[in-house]
Amino acid sequence: MLTLYYAPGTCALASHIALEESGAPFDAIRLDFSAGEQTKPDYLAVNPKGRVPALVTDRGILTETPAILAFIAQSFPSARLAPTDDAYDFARVQAFNSYLCSTVHVAHAHKLRGYRWATEQASFDDMKRKVPDSVAACFQLIETEMLAGPWVMGDAYTICDPYLFTIAGWLESDGVDPARFPKVLAHRHRMAERPAVKRALAAEG
Amino acid sequence: MLTLYYAPGTCALASHIALEESGAPFDAIRLDFSAGEQTKPDYLAVNPKGRVPALVTDRGILTETPAILAFIAQSFPSARLAPTDDAYDFARVQAFNSYLCSTVHVAHAHKLRGYRWATEQASFDDMKRKVPDSVAACFQLIETEMLAGPWVMGDAYTICDPYLFTIAGWLESDGVDPARFPKVLAHRHRMAERPAVKRALAAEG
Repeated sequence: MLTLYYAPGTCALASHIALEESGAPFDAIRLDFSAGEQTKPDYLAVNPKGRVPALVTDRGILTETPAILAFIAQSFPSARLAPTDDAYDFARVQAFNSYLCSTVHVAHAHKLRGYRWATEQASFDDMKRKVPDSVAACFQLIETEMLAGPWVMGDAYTICDPYLFTIAGWLESDGVDPARFPKVLAHRHRMAERPAVKRALAAEG
Repeated sequence: MLTLYYAPGTCALASHIALEESGAPFDAIRLDFSAGEQTKPDYLAVNPKGRVPALVTDRGILTETPAILAFIAQSFPSARLAPTDDAYDFARVQAFNSYLCSTVHVAHAHKLRGYRWATEQASFDDMKRKVPDSVAACFQLIETEMLAGPWVMGDAYTICDPYLFTIAGWLESDGVDPARFPKVLAHRHRMAERPAVKRALAAEG
């Protein structure tokens, strides 16, 4: 049995959707970030990084969204969530997800997590002001260079799709008008119609 | 034939070492970052992100270190660079590399790339001052929770090792004394003895 630790509004939604898509049975445990549950000893024993997602498996605990997504795809091949047997196609999937985690999510994180990289309030304010531009620049690249359509990789739905859907869901709160990116916006609407997405969103409340 | 675009002193060294370990023939093309070659049209046609590494393959161009490393491991299985057939073990490899790219490299990047996330010189200075602490915190977690030894994943050398070696090579210039992390330091010495590492370092000059 798999158990996902998540918090609403975080990137853990991508793994939550992928688990729903996989057809595998799983439990989902919600952490209350407003109560700081992610930094308490009980959770640090699960994930010493103090972040979500974490996926408890029979063999151990996995962290980091791109790794969890690839694990789900490879563990449940009948769901066809990634071309895991083709080194080049799988690498394209992983390159997209790596860009989301190391560049797009990081740009977004400067809105509320500036304390990770600076000390002064003035720096946090400066970072926050730049988020609309830096996030929009990422989505411009996704729109023009990466999102093949109808799904990220083209005709095949993959683990790139729930991850893009999750991070594209933050555009408005990052001060970016999603109408600037019609392909991303259409992808978001397309995703919202999938039963697995509806189930994950309903579970996260 | 594979062609790697790299610049000395960057994370592209990880892919360069992995290619040397793979036994595959490849070319390596050096970009001159001091001349801004990574932002010129010729290179943007290779990688619109304007960064290294990029790996040109017969089927297309790959970017993002974790994806390139996994591609090399999966394409040349006889080099045994990752447990690609075991979903859990492969996910552990990918989780480690994902942490390096999205957290450790990002912490380091605030020393010289603050303009990605802020606008004011005072913010850049503030970010730069925090780098020794934020990078050290990452390496504390690697030292105590992640680096099994003798290699990152334990007895098996994997694509985690050249990536850790590359980023651990920045500790001194990030203002962190590597002696604080004896396992990381021993790993760095162990890596430096490998013929593939020596070849990649010699090629990068």
